[in-house]
Amino acid sequence: MRQLLVIVLAAGEGTRMLSDLPKVLHQVAGRPMVSHVLDAARGAGAAQIAVVIGPDHEQVAAEVKRVAPGAEVFVQEQRRGTAHAVLSAREALARGYDDVVVMYGDTPLVRAETLDRLRAPLAEGAAVSVLGFRPESPAGYGRLLTEGGELVAIREEKEASAAEREIGLCNGGLMALDGKAALDLLDRIGDANAKREFYLTDAVEIARALGRTAAACEAPTEEVVGVNSRAQLAEAEAILQQRLRQRALDAGVTLVAPQTVFLSSDTRFGRDVVVEPNVFFGPKVRVEDGATIRAFSHVEGAHVGPGAIVGPFARLRPGAELGQGVHVGNFVEIKASDLAAGVKVNHLTYVGDSSVGANTNIGAGTITCNYDGYRKHRTTIGANAFVGTNSLLVAPVTVGDGAYLATGSVITEDVPADALAIGRARQVNKPGLAARLRARLSAGVTPKK
Amino acid sequence: MRQLLVIVLAAGEGTRMLSDLPKVLHQVAGRPMVSHVLDAARGAGAAQIAVVIGPDHEQVAAEVKRVAPGAEVFVQEQRRGTAHAVLSAREALARGYDDVVVMYGDTPLVRAETLDRLRAPLAEGAAVSVLGFRPESPAGYGRLLTEGGELVAIREEKEASAAEREIGLCNGGLMALDGKAALDLLDRIGDANAKREFYLTDAVEIARALGRTAAACEAPTEEVVGVNSRAQLAEAEAILQQRLRQRALDAGVTLVAPQTVFLSSDTRFGRDVVVEPNVFFGPKVRVEDGATIRAFSHVEGAHVGPGAIVGPFARLRPGAELGQGVHVGNFVEIKASDLAAGVKVNHLTYVGDSSVGANTNIGAGTITCNYDGYRKHRTTIGANAFVGTNSLLVAPVTVGDGAYLATGSVITEDVPADALAIGRARQVNKPGLAARLRARLSAGVTPKK
Amino acid sequence: MRQLLVIVLAAGEGTRMLSDLPKVLHQVAGRPMVSHVLDAARGAGAAQIAVVIGPDHEQVAAEVKRVAPGAEVFVQEQRRGTAHAVLSAREALARGYDDVVVMYGDTPLVRAETLDRLRAPLAEGAAVSVLGFRPESPAGYGRLLTEGGELVAIREEKEASAAEREIGLCNGGLMALDGKAALDLLDRIGDANAKREFYLTDAVEIARALGRTAAACEAPTEEVVGVNSRAQLAEAEAILQQRLRQRALDAGVTLVAPQTVFLSSDTRFGRDVVVEPNVFFGPKVRVEDGATIRAFSHVEGAHVGPGAIVGPFARLRPGAELGQGVHVGNFVEIKASDLAAGVKVNHLTYVGDSSVGANTNIGAGTITCNYDGYRKHRTTIGANAFVGTNSLLVAPVTVGDGAYLATGSVITEDVPADALAIGRARQVNKPGLAARLRARLSAGVTPKK
Repeated sequence: MRQLLVIVLAAGEGTRMLSDLPKVLHQVAGRPMVSHVLDAARGAGAAQIAVVIGPDHEQVAAEVKRVAPGAEVFVQEQRRGTAHAVLSAREALARGYDDVVVMYGDTPLVRAETLDRLRAPLAEGAAVSVLGFRPESPAGYGRLLTEGGELVAIREEKEASAAEREIGLCNGGLMALDGKAALDLLDRIGDANAKREFYLTDAVEIARALGRTAAACEAPTEEVVGVNSRAQLAEAEAILQQRLRQRALDAGVTLVAPQTVFLSSDTRFGRDVVVEPNVFFGPKVRVEDGATIRAFSHVEGAHVGPGAIVGPFARLRPGAELGQGVHVGNFVEIKASDLAAGVKVNHLTYVGDSSVGANTNIGAGTITCNYDGYRKHRTTIGANAFVGTNSLLVAPVTVGDGAYLATGSVITEDVPADALAIGRARQVNKPGLAARLRARLSAGVTPKK
Repeated sequence: MRQLLVIVLAAGEGTRMLSDLPKVLHQVAGRPMVSHVLDAARGAGAAQIAVVIGPDHEQVAAEVKRVAPGAEVFVQEQRRGTAHAVLSAREALARGYDDVVVMYGDTPLVRAETLDRLRAPLAEGAAVSVLGFRPESPAGYGRLLTEGGELVAIREEKEASAAEREIGLCNGGLMALDGKAALDLLDRIGDANAKREFYLTDAVEIARALGRTAAACEAPTEEVVGVNSRAQLAEAEAILQQRLRQRALDAGVTLVAPQTVFLSSDTRFGRDVVVEPNVFFGPKVRVEDGATIRAFSHVEGAHVGPGAIVGPFARLRPGAELGQGVHVGNFVEIKASDLAAGVKVNHLTYVGDSSVGANTNIGAGTITCNYDGYRKHRTTIGANAFVGTNSLLVAPVTVGDGAYLATGSVITEDVPADALAIGRARQVNKPGLAARLRARLSAGVTPKK
Repeated sequence: MRQLLVIVLAAGEGTRMLSDLPKVLHQVAGRPMVSHVLDAARGAGAAQIAVVIGPDHEQVAAEVKRVAPGAEVFVQEQRRGTAHAVLSAREALARGYDDVVVMYGDTPLVRAETLDRLRAPLAEGAAVSVLGFRPESPAGYGRLLTEGGELVAIREEKEASAAEREIGLCNGGLMALDGKAALDLLDRIGDANAKREFYLTDAVEIARALGRTAAACEAPTEEVVGVNSRAQLAEAEAILQQRLRQRALDAGVTLVAPQTVFLSSDTRFGRDVVVEPNVFFGPKVRVEDGATIRAFSHVEGAHVGPGAIVGPFARLRPGAELGQGVHVGNFVEIKASDLAAGVKVNHLTYVGDSSVGANTNIGAGTITCNYDGYRKHRTTIGANAFVGTNSLLVAPVTVGDGAYLATGSVITEDVPADALAIGRARQVNKPGLAARLRARLSAGVTPKK
């Protein structure tokens, strides 16, 4: 197998983003663009990844290290063109990998399979392989000039003849280079042009002048589209979401209204899952067979067990673990909690940092008071318990199996199994007092409480 | 009036759905596809409906009986083609209805009016009438060959000449047959073909060989599109929603963003209703004149009275009956409850199994505790009452007209009219204790509660 | 600078709206159509605005006065055509402004810049200038006949020759008139036509007959589209939202899914704001630098400070003032309240008519009880306080800096700084009672409470 070095150019300032954040850290599908690029590089089996970042872009370096710990990061001190940027990774290039692929940190939609196709000509002797695409209107793009199946040159539009401008195949930017020749080719690229920059595109003609061949391969336009503005960021998001939705549909998930469902690249669904309209899936969600995610639900970092029903208006936060057949209803938030099979939490509830045993019913308005202003504490509730409406469980606290918490109780002490716990004042009726109160209030008096 | 037998073919396995559920039970607009087909059959005035299901599809039979109790269900034991499937309903065919129409359980968007048009040629002497459509690309579809206004044959693409492939009118599958001749025609269809199946499309040429005529009529593509995958299910949903939204707009409903509103076939609106973006209407909803459904609301089985305001973030569940001018606000759930005119329930509340009298104000955080772990109980609140914030009403319980429930009370006993009920502990301030508590908490001590 | 009179024709009944509301009061982007028209008129620097309304349309007059207090309102008693309608504002016309522009109350998408372009020919001597557009299909529209760069006539389709019907430039309705000549031109328009109405379009030929010139200028179709039905209202909304979304993207806001975000014309965003899918912005919202509005949030009349995080499932109502870094979480409603820097209100809470000091933490389930059935009262909470879970603050009430409210307390009296306030019953455990209770409940007994 040929050893692959992927060089990701991620030094762009992204002025048109009008942002303090380096461009490649802007997100699509909940992750920085550069992370999608790194994923594709790894998906294509890169032996090594080198990322070229701009000066003062430590945030980019940190994200690269987080997503691809083995990647090398190089800083391009001056911005003098794409070839110059690639040469910032000279140390990696000098190791002589079989193949080198140049990717862009602001082009998040390239698939690993496309990189495979881009590299293929190298194995057959080409020195350079360029990724082309056919935009609806080619105006403004460099054209890929081919002859007899070989790529002859990349012609910038302003230098193109009328005939060349008729060519529909445009330069998508991504390039694969023969790793043994790459450094030599790159070093031969000059800056004798208007902007005094070193252009990677020159590699094609240089390779041919050295008697080597170049190739063009083609990808869907959407894969090579770079993101330079917030509008393009939104377009990339839309394309990626469309891809993720199609993948879910193809896998047998019912998305009632696919365009209203937002997915992450790592969202995983079992068989016969139904997702109603307007559901947002953040990262790290797994939904098992036969589960239903109802409308207006927001799910991140959660595991939804088989046959569970979530929503409408439910929020599952990271660490929510729902067992088989669990019901989580409206205006309910679950965080860092295990709900065993058959648990029901149907209304207006916050369950955080808790464990709840099988078949326990959590009444409306229940709150696990997990935070004392300094630290979080855990609540443990047994199986077959009945947590009455508006129970407040002041953690750390444990409620035994089969316990019954009376409506409106503040639970500060552990409750033994099968015990009833009650902590509330007794009701007193004061006949006629409401009428008198109304009279005073309507007269503008603020009564003593 | 000509007596109509509709035969619905619903035996498909739907392998591409990747589902344990029979294909025709997958839902669009909240109802199984086959139910939409049965609706159209009934809308066209069918005297009888026969549904052909697959073996082990008892769930389909049950749904058919639920939606169309008078329908007959036949089981196609082996899958040997469309004509074979139709003949599974031989018993119904043998009764000799005037017209027979063959529909498909996975083609949920056909309108009753289209069936009327499909049948029309039978009344004028045709033996067979076929529903055609003009897809954007006809490749892959059978073509309808016509001569002098008559349908001559249905030609499968692979047997079509180059000239025939130029024909844009394709076979949509639905067919009407002269009911007196149908059985004879169907019995003459053979299986002398590659797959050894009996194809309903052969009926055209057989009828003509017998000296009868056949006709083609045309329907919009969207009506004849069958559903074979989750992606197609989503497309059918989108088309049906588009139809329902257009119907609402035409009836004078303001849908601020129609594509974000999800409707059921039976959603009914009065005059000058406004529906904001992102509203989901499940089955059996009626919204009266001048009501407003605000953004992010979820409404099922509910009746919204004139001038009522619902949402944002409101959920009305089955049995919610809102009188004139009722306000139901954010994070509020209403279930199986009557709210009389002028009631306000504006924040963070669950009202279930309750009756609330006119002009009563339900404070934020109120919960009707209707469930004791075994059964549901009712809460009755009178008119002009004031239900203080976070009142918990432990059902069964009755609160009289004009009563006043003090903030934070647990109401376990009935409250007489005009009485004030209070059930809460008195506040005690412990000077300086918060500062000491903070010191201990920040030092890592978990204080005694 | 030329003095401009804008006459807005707003007398239409809008029969096709099927509404009790005058047509021009139907809303797009949360405001009546006529208000958008008035905005454009003011944006174009109108010295005076005259609005022509129908009889019994006092609601329209009131809205006009609200939005453009200096505007004059004229009533068109009978509906006898557009010229007749314009002449209802004779008193304003008689004042002899330099330019007169005729707009329509049901054409809400015209931009001020377009009015500038429409007026430009007047400054160069034209008596009339007509706004044209090029619809996809011109059928049904009047055509603008031009010769040598001048507008010669507006030809109604039914009177157009075959050659004239080939013209793609159609009459968009809006017209600019030389203000000194306008009254004379309008008075010369006759009603010698089938409907006996006075058509503004005749002004072109009359001006030319008097030796003056007319001009045509062109606008995008979307700007001149009038609203006559709820479907067209929804289309206008969609176009306007698209415009507002593009403006936000161009200004550097991340809209993850632009088509799911609903904006008002006056929504203002700082730098590096992120808006997740499904967010609704009502009028008068300002979001400062680096703030994030998470999915499923509903924001009206609110100010979101720098770095604040709102949602998911948050509702900010008018008067919500969030300081730097404030967090407002799920199922939380904030109304008419100032939250100082660093305040956290993360779950299931209602804060209304309150002030909360810096860095205070508001626990889940907290409710400020601001309403006594007659009046609203204020709650004041100091800085660095800890409002325990499910605290109920009965306003008017003040909680001092650094105070600690114990979980489940009803706070009716002021709490001094650094004090701990507690108001709840003590928990009692009754061993075995839950088991006995279950036995009785499951036997169908409703136990004494």
